[in-house]
This record gives sequence, structure tokens and C-alpha cells, in this order.
Amino acid sequence: MALPLNPLLDERMIRDLLVVVDLAGTFVFAISGAMLGVRRKLDFFGVMALSFAASSAGGIARDLLIGSVPPAAISDWRYFTVAMAAGLSIFFWYSPISRQRTAILVFDAAGLALFAVAGAEKALAFGLNPLTAALLGMLTGIGGGITRDLLVARTPAVLRDDLYAVAALAGALLVVTGHLLDWQVLPTAIAAALLCFGLRLAAIRRGWRLPVARSAEEDKEDV
Amino acid sequence: MALPLNPLLDERMIRDLLVVVDLAGTFVFAISGAMLGVRRKLDFFGVMALSFAASSAGGIARDLLIGSVPPAAISDWRYFTVAMAAGLSIFFWYSPISRQRTAILVFDAAGLALFAVAGAEKALAFGLNPLTAALLGMLTGIGGGITRDLLVARTPAVLRDDLYAVAALAGALLVVTGHLLDWQVLPTAIAAALLCFGLRLAAIRRGWRLPVARSAEEDKEDV
Amino acid sequence: MALPLNPLLDERMIRDLLVVVDLAGTFVFAISGAMLGVRRKLDFFGVMALSFAASSAGGIARDLLIGSVPPAAISDWRYFTVAMAAGLSIFFWYSPISRQRTAILVFDAAGLALFAVAGAEKALAFGLNPLTAALLGMLTGIGGGITRDLLVARTPAVLRDDLYAVAALAGALLVVTGHLLDWQVLPTAIAAALLCFGLRLAAIRRGWRLPVARSAEEDKEDV
Repeated sequence: MALPLNPLLDERMIRDLLVVVDLAGTFVFAISGAMLGVRRKLDFFGVMALSFAASSAGGIARDLLIGSVPPAAISDWRYFTVAMAAGLSIFFWYSPISRQRTAILVFDAAGLALFAVAGAEKALAFGLNPLTAALLGMLTGIGGGITRDLLVARTPAVLRDDLYAVAALAGALLVVTGHLLDWQVLPTAIAAALLCFGLRLAAIRRGWRLPVARSAEEDKEDV
Repeated sequence: MALPLNPLLDERMIRDLLVVVDLAGTFVFAISGAMLGVRRKLDFFGVMALSFAASSAGGIARDLLIGSVPPAAISDWRYFTVAMAAGLSIFFWYSPISRQRTAILVFDAAGLALFAVAGAEKALAFGLNPLTAALLGMLTGIGGGITRDLLVARTPAVLRDDLYAVAALAGALLVVTGHLLDWQVLPTAIAAALLCFGLRLAAIRRGWRLPVARSAEEDKEDV
Repeated sequence: MALPLNPLLDERMIRDLLVVVDLAGTFVFAISGAMLGVRRKLDFFGVMALSFAASSAGGIARDLLIGSVPPAAISDWRYFTVAMAAGLSIFFWYSPISRQRTAILVFDAAGLALFAVAGAEKALAFGLNPLTAALLGMLTGIGGGITRDLLVARTPAVLRDDLYAVAALAGALLVVTGHLLDWQVLPTAIAAALLCFGLRLAAIRRGWRLPVARSAEEDKEDV
């Protein structure tokens, strides 16, 4: 990693920052999981389980894939506590919170940016190659939402929706590019998070979507 | 671990006991998987696959998360054999077995208790912290049922149903509490299994359920 | 492993062969994933994600279970590149390709054979016992298709369809048998792949199916 000024200070600061960023992302994603749980009329445990899954499945998948076990999301009690706090908030104050549609979208975009950057940084720190690190950053960002959707048996929104995964990938790619070109870590991470966050918000506001392929024969069963 | 009398004897005995308990739990959960497979008209392989998934996915998830690879469920042929035996029984004698509704519920509760206790013990033995060990005990108990339900594309029953996960969590928490307070391992494990088993049966008989949150806007799509 | 002639040459050749075989299997499975994605009207990212999942989930599951992290499918850029190439082909030329129904079935059978053999070989090379190695070979073959189907929230075809998993299991079992009896590795692998490929094609042509169990009470909910 590029640590040109004061390696030790920089490294410790980055680790602390990663934790704060991770916990903030954990909270907003847990909110999205809990809201889906309430809408699907899951019981108290179901809402809590979706909170935890939405907030932690991406990071757990990343940690399993890079061999960092037990994953931080289950070995560090702070992640669990934050996810439960988010789940409880939604369980008791669903209506007032769910009316804040814009706020929720903005927070979700922030969570995506935070997780994509933190995921790519951690993969690089574990010595993975740049392409893999970028993909794992994206997976960290979108894995929670995919698991959340699968748990209520629906096709994950990220596979059919507007620019979501692409924003995460863009942020993760900037982190990796900075790593390859020996840029300073902290400014690169901030720029990458802003890139992902901005792309995601622009996609929401302007209705940017990825193209869909044309298929002559629709609704047929697969091979 | 608390081994106040004869450490070696106690440790070996506990390990043997864990295996017996695990195999018994494997059998009853495989039964539940196979029954769902038959009901959904899966073919012979599908029924066997659901037997194996229902009986082993919880333990496999736990073993992956604590870094115990290859997981016992696939490296120890006894688990596979027991799951296949249960699947074959159901495939050939579905009707007579499925009429034993009460017996099946009682056995399932027993499996839940056995897995929750064994899962928490194994997580503690791998040096995980108490909170994580309790959660992994619960996951070991409910993971098989979640995977079984996801494989037939339905929302896992444990997320919407009566006191199921909570019973597993209660048992796992008692194991962890005993560990923290240096109680003897075997009596604690038995008490924990009975607690989980009793809670689950009481929940079935009395229709205990967890609360569901009120949501003003229903059936809307998520963020 | 049985290396009776020239161990070093044989070992290197086998490793190279495994990679070629793996990449070919990756391509055909990615095609099947991308086609399902187009049919379900997923966007560009969704199609690419299904390509990758269908081609790599089986190998990733195997690698996680045997403790080979990071899994080859994400640490070796060639797998990712091949999966993306397949996804792009389908995204832009869906109609002409999808009309080649027979070709697709044949290629899919080839992919199944290649993955089942390569999966069993890798599990043996990691020192797993023969039963586990055979099951992991099967899982490598069918895991991608299962993940592909779960991502669009449908029951995996392999659980209800014709002889698919059984063909993979037969190939993997032959690899393991050869290992136990000290047969030469390469001829055994070829024979095993042909066995799986032939079984699968015969099952398609003759409509071979596995039996389905009779259930008196249908469409009831599970325990």
C-alpha cells in the first residue's frame, strides 16, 4: 500500500477509518433490510435477521473469499450491535422512517459507497490482485442487498435495477487504480466514495438505467 | 473450557457426545428436508439434495465461518450416510411417516435443540467470543431449514413463524453463559438442550408467536 | 495421486489440462446463465452477474469447502474474462444463439462433464476422502446452475429435472474409483468426462428421468 508520509500513523488511521466507515454502512443497510422485513410481514426475529443479513452478508462473503475467518461481521460485536439497533428502530418506528423516501435513498447510496471502498481496501490489504479486489469491493457493496432479497424469495433488485452495482464497481476501481499508481490512500478512498455516491444519486435523479437485451422468445424456460 | 474434574476424560466424552448429538439432529432435519422435497414433487435427486441441505447447511455455514474446513458434514461420511438414510425413508414411505405430524414436530424440536447446543460448543471450542458463539449456535440450528426453504424458492419459515429461532438462541445462550461462569460442560449442555426443546414445544402447543411490526403502506416495493 | 510414468511431467500436464477444461466449462455455463438473464429481462449488469454466477459458483463453493482461498474463479483473471466474454456474446446476439437449442444442450452437457471431473480431481489433490471428493465433483458441476436459478428466485432445475446431477456424480465417481485403484490419471479423467457427457446426452434424447415419490397430501405447507 502507498504510505509515503508516516506509514505507522497512516496505517492506524486508515484502519480506524475503515471501521467507522464500515459501521456507518452497516447501519444504513440494516435499515433497508429491516424495512423489507416489515413490509413482508416477517415477525420480530425475521426483521432482525434481515437487518443483519442486509448489513453483513456482503462483508461476510468477501471475508470468506479472501480467507479472513471468522469474518469481522460476526467476530466484532459492534457490527452486530449496530445492525440490531437499526432493526429495532425500524421495528418500532417503521411508518415515520419509511416516509423519508429521499433520505433513505441517500443513506443507501452512502452505504454502498462506504462498503465498496472498504471492501476493495481490505481485499488489497490481503494481497489480492487488482481485478479481484475491485470485484470484491463491488460484492461487498451489493452482497447484502442480494442476500436480503433472496431471503424473501425475490430476484435481487440489483440485477434488474438502475445503476447500482456499476456505481459500486466504479468506486472500487478507483481505489484499485490509486493502489496501482501509488496514490495516497486516504484522498483516494474519499474520492472513490464520492464517485460511487455521486454516480448512484445521479442515476436515481435522472433515471439512468443499464440497457436490457432484446429477446425474441420471452418467458420460456431455460435450458 | 471448564473442565474441573478430569479434563481428558471429559473432553473425549464431550467430543463423542457431540458426534452422537449431531448425527441425531442430522437425521431429523434430513427428514424435514425430504418431506418438503416430496411435497414439491422434486425427483429422487432433488429429495436427496434437500435431505442433505436441510441437515447439513447449518453446520457447513458454521464451519466455514469459524474456518474449520473441510466442514465435518462433508468430510465425515457418517453425516452424509445418515442424511441419505433419512431421505430414502421418506422417498419410499412418505405417506405413513407424514401422518405422524406430532412426532415430526417433536423430532424437529429435538434436532433444533441438539444443533443449537452442538453449534455453540464448537464455536466456543474454536475460540470465538461468547456473543458470536451464541449466534453461531442459533445459525447451526436454523441454517438447514433456511437453505431447505430457499432451494424451493420460498421465504424461510423461520423468518415468519412462531418461536423457532428464539428457542435455538436461548439454548445457545445458556451454553455460552455456562462457559463464561465455568459451569460443568455436560450438565450445562443438557440443560441448554432441554431449554430449547421445551421452549419450542411450548411455542407449538400454545401458539406463541413473535410480534409483527405495523406497516402503514403494504406490499410496496423496497428501496 | 497415481503418477506411474513421469510424475513431474504428468503433474504439470494435468494442471494445465485442468485449467483448459475449467475455462471451457466456464464459457458454456456462463452462456446458460446469460441466456436466463436475458429471458428474465435483467439489465446489462444482471446478465453479466448471472454469467459469472452460473460459471463460477460451483467452483467457488468447492474451493471454500476445501479451504482453497481465494477461490481460483476470482483470483485468476482468466475465469472472469471468459465469463464476461460469454455474457457479452449473449447480450448482443441472444436471438441467433438461442435458436441453437441442440448446440446449447450439448455444450451444457460438456460443461457439466468438464466441471465434475475437474472438481473431483481438485478435491482429491487437496487430500479429501473419496466420498467427499465425488460429492464435491458433483457440486462443482451443478453448483453454478443452482445459484443461477436461485438468483432469479426459482427452484433449481437440477432438483426436479432429468438425469443431470446423476450424470455429474457418475463422472466424479469414476475419477475417484480410478484414484483408489491407482489408474493413470489422464485416461481416467477422459473416460469419466465421456461417461458423464454420454449419460447426460442419452438422458436428454431418451427423456430419462429420475422417479418422483408419491405423496398423498399435496401442496400442504411443511413443518
